[in-house]
Amino acid sequence: MENFQNILEKYAEVAIKIGINLQKNQTLVIDAPIPALDYVRLVTKKAYELGAKNVIINWDDEATKRMNFEYASEEALTEFPEWLKVKYDELIKQNAAILTIYSPNPDLLQGIDPNRLSKAMKTRTEGLKHLLNAKKSATISWSIVSVPTKEWAAKIFPDLSESESMEELWKQIFHTTRMTSENPVSEWESHIERFIEKLTFLNENKFKTLHYYGSGTDLTIDLAKDHIWSGAGMNNQEGTYFVPNIPTEEVFTMPDRNGVNGTVTSTKPLNYNGNLINHFSLTFKDGRIIDYKAEEGFEILKGLIETDEGSHYLGEVALVPHHSPISDTNLIFYNTLFDENASCHLAIGFAYPFNIENGTEMTEEELAEHGANLSLVHEDFMVGSADLNIDGIKANGEKIAIFRHGNWAF
Amino acid sequence: MENFQNILEKYAEVAIKIGINLQKNQTLVIDAPIPALDYVRLVTKKAYELGAKNVIINWDDEATKRMNFEYASEEALTEFPEWLKVKYDELIKQNAAILTIYSPNPDLLQGIDPNRLSKAMKTRTEGLKHLLNAKKSATISWSIVSVPTKEWAAKIFPDLSESESMEELWKQIFHTTRMTSENPVSEWESHIERFIEKLTFLNENKFKTLHYYGSGTDLTIDLAKDHIWSGAGMNNQEGTYFVPNIPTEEVFTMPDRNGVNGTVTSTKPLNYNGNLINHFSLTFKDGRIIDYKAEEGFEILKGLIETDEGSHYLGEVALVPHHSPISDTNLIFYNTLFDENASCHLAIGFAYPFNIENGTEMTEEELAEHGANLSLVHEDFMVGSADLNIDGIKANGEKIAIFRHGNWAF
Repeated sequence: MENFQNILEKYAEVAIKIGINLQKNQTLVIDAPIPALDYVRLVTKKAYELGAKNVIINWDDEATKRMNFEYASEEALTEFPEWLKVKYDELIKQNAAILTIYSPNPDLLQGIDPNRLSKAMKTRTEGLKHLLNAKKSATISWSIVSVPTKEWAAKIFPDLSESESMEELWKQIFHTTRMTSENPVSEWESHIERFIEKLTFLNENKFKTLHYYGSGTDLTIDLAKDHIWSGAGMNNQEGTYFVPNIPTEEVFTMPDRNGVNGTVTSTKPLNYNGNLINHFSLTFKDGRIIDYKAEEGFEILKGLIETDEGSHYLGEVALVPHHSPISDTNLIFYNTLFDENASCHLAIGFAYPFNIENGTEMTEEELAEHGANLSLVHEDFMVGSADLNIDGIKANGEKIAIFRHGNWAF
Repeated sequence: MENFQNILEKYAEVAIKIGINLQKNQTLVIDAPIPALDYVRLVTKKAYELGAKNVIINWDDEATKRMNFEYASEEALTEFPEWLKVKYDELIKQNAAILTIYSPNPDLLQGIDPNRLSKAMKTRTEGLKHLLNAKKSATISWSIVSVPTKEWAAKIFPDLSESESMEELWKQIFHTTRMTSENPVSEWESHIERFIEKLTFLNENKFKTLHYYGSGTDLTIDLAKDHIWSGAGMNNQEGTYFVPNIPTEEVFTMPDRNGVNGTVTSTKPLNYNGNLINHFSLTFKDGRIIDYKAEEGFEILKGLIETDEGSHYLGEVALVPHHSPISDTNLIFYNTLFDENASCHLAIGFAYPFNIENGTEMTEEELAEHGANLSLVHEDFMVGSADLNIDGIKANGEKIAIFRHGNWAF
């Protein structure tokens, strides 16, 4: 690719300046898969140039991670090391920022006992609860970007050679993350401004209910009391604006945990911890999932839904136009960071407290009173398509078209 | 190389079975440079096959490590994270074993302010004191092996291409670590038996003083009261025999901290934290270094000696025949693990408590009374050559030749 190194450096710059918005003397943590080595070095250098106090890198190797799930003792799978809690407590206390480079092999965990997997995931999620809370309440700045790996590239482009598929995936990532203009940082600043318009319209209308309908889906979702629509970025506890997802195309808010009724059908495969769930539907009554089906990965879906009581309820409603840089690629990325930004989606599991007024200052009880769902997990799944229509219904019964044929109607 | 994969697997097996002697349901920690990826995966697999409870990998990237030394804030260099202490406290408590894959680029830290470097090293050494103590008193099993990196290979074989130098270094590592026989594990068992003979002779003679003489060196070293000669392996707190260094050719004991007099001249370069110190000599009076010279790396040597009071004294005396698989390669490996095993050497800094009777049960005060040196550092430097002679002098004045022309005289 022409200019590859140059664009890669800009991609590092966008992660640090737009995604994290790193401040002088702040510590940066990078969760880094080993194949992202070159990119991580660029990000690290950029962070120090911008005055980072320190850069701490958590390297990760997929092959030995898989061995851990496969061979570690049952005891090791279910005990969470105290030191990892202490680590993130320390880092949160010093207002460190966390950049996650997310490049999973979609088939990594195929064939591993789902029972062992869900035990390990539950241990990890419970152990890192403090960190998850700091992220979901935007206490600290965090962001996710993706870098190709050969397994991931081969999954999307199975007919290309290794080097061709890697190059193609890099191209698609650079395209969908708006890296191809002269100045990607200012491109992102304009992108963020366009979000503000949509958010203003949705927040001013204060819809009581959304009605989703289209092939395979007929679902009503009440929105939480005092809900707030968010999108692009948010402020951390120190008032620094950061953008958690690169790319991002979604605006999202909090559903009322108990106000969801009807059936929704998935429109893209879901890659959950290295396992695929595909062609599935969920049926809700008074918020709770009372039935579910999947043509592929039923046991994985079951493990996800049965994690805890909260994983039977919705925690997020997100709107994404069917026409967007990601969606227009017509690719399935097998990576939620991209696929969720190509399509309207919902999430099973916990709600983000910042999606209701004063939510980040509320106790769990107060959040629950406002209709916020609590859970260990938060898993997006895609429901958007060219057939999807969404109406917004106000408290007085007034109905306004929000989406028609998968795109914004206003 | 013919059979490369097969020998590599045996090299993993020797690390786990001989080096660590991993026990069922034990946790293994691997300190792993990223270029050792393939080897680390083999070691991890082997460890799980032998019943490891868990394998925890600390990946390390040299380029971002250098950036940390170069660009991190002064504050970050001098504060040690609490969570890292908690981590090793937890691991020591559960009797985890630590395998370090040591493959440094000898020139990695060239040009970095020695003042920043020694601050960072001191912070780290003080922060990990508990871990160092657990290693030096053999509380836990630990071992070090090396894997080529392209920078390291290029340093040894500057005239070869990258792939040739890597292959040549692999060959030399496999040769010197006795991997080329049919059954390296049983080859190592015989190697260990041959150590026992030398150790028995030295321990039965209970020498009071060693006299080193040869070109550039004339030094007397009193041995500590109730000293014990060690070599090859030792027992951890649970009685498991492990071998800390692969390769290993040395037998070693504890000098009397205050009983060293004369001058010793180095015979090989010393790679200290990525910096070379070369052609240096140290002069001792009553144990303390009173003068030192270096043709290369004087400031680095100064930083090492000035770490603390204990770094002005010796903590180890090690005997290695001039003819050994490593020495016979006639190579300088720029890696202490190999170079120290090619040559008689001494160490500046802390003594190993297991080198005197009941030493591992003594307090620091009791150790000091027996002549043990205390320090934050322990740094080997090479003094052996074909010109070196060593006499052992007993309490009654009897003199016995131990080394003549660099080799065992008995």
